Amino acid sequence: MHLKQNTDYSLRILMYAATHRDEMVSAREICEFYDISYSHTVKIVNKLGKLGYLELKRGRYGGGIALAIEPEAIDIGTVVRQFESNMDVVECFDPDTNTCSIAGGCRLKFFFQEALDSFFNALDGKTLAEVLPPQK
Amino acid sequence: MHLKQNTDYSLRILMYAATHRDEMVSAREICEFYDISYSHTVKIVNKLGKLGYLELKRGRYGGGIALAIEPEAIDIGTVVRQFESNMDVVECFDPDTNTCSIAGGCRLKFFFQEALDSFFNALDGKTLAEVLPPQK
Repeated sequence: MHLKQNTDYSLRILMYAATHRDEMVSAREICEFYDISYSHTVKIVNKLGKLGYLELKRGRYGGGIALAIEPEAIDIGTVVRQFESNMDVVECFDPDTNTCSIAGGCRLKFFFQEALDSFFNALDGKTLAEVLPPQK
Repeated sequence: MHLKQNTDYSLRILMYAATHRDEMVSAREICEFYDISYSHTVKIVNKLGKLGYLELKRGRYGGGIALAIEPEAIDIGTVVRQFESNMDVVECFDPDTNTCSIAGGCRLKFFFQEALDSFFNALDGKTLAEVLPPQK
């Protein structure tokens, strides 16, 4: 069972910005720090900007990336939901692509939905501030 | 967030066997019923046999597949754990392949482990008998 790589990276990028609050950071330094591709980093940074987590200032001088809100206000469960666009734990979650012939009468889907809700309930209320490494 | 396709199929195969308890079934009819490839079906059937969920009798006459234990004794959480060999929700769960440079001090891993535990706790105690479609 995996989360998407982008979900993992989105949280790492927020953590990087949160531990460098005294300066603007760049996509280049984030991608080098985590060894993620530059284009991948830019894509996730832009999404985090649109979602209101990052402030993105353009320009060679004074430009860069900064956390737009306090780490205490960034909810891990919410970020994971926003990046996990496909929550179809098993095929029958999506009636459009389901091929399982017993989907109509099967109750497995409801148990998996309950399990998925439990997964997110455990992350809801946990904030970025709580996952940051101790400041040196 | 997904489970592996094999996990989904393993539960479907168990359900098929559970709803055909008055006869031996064949891998061929299971794969046709669910529109899964034959070789894929055989592989999962064999694993379910080794795990003690299915009884596999060889032979052209009288051979076939049958549920080896009662549906009430088959725990959904246990089956899912047995088929989800890789439980690395995010990269840093596996220290051998982790590349994240902040893994040492980051507490995200513990929150994800807690969420994963909640996912399985929700499935534990649910049995195959409870997910079966109503018998006609």
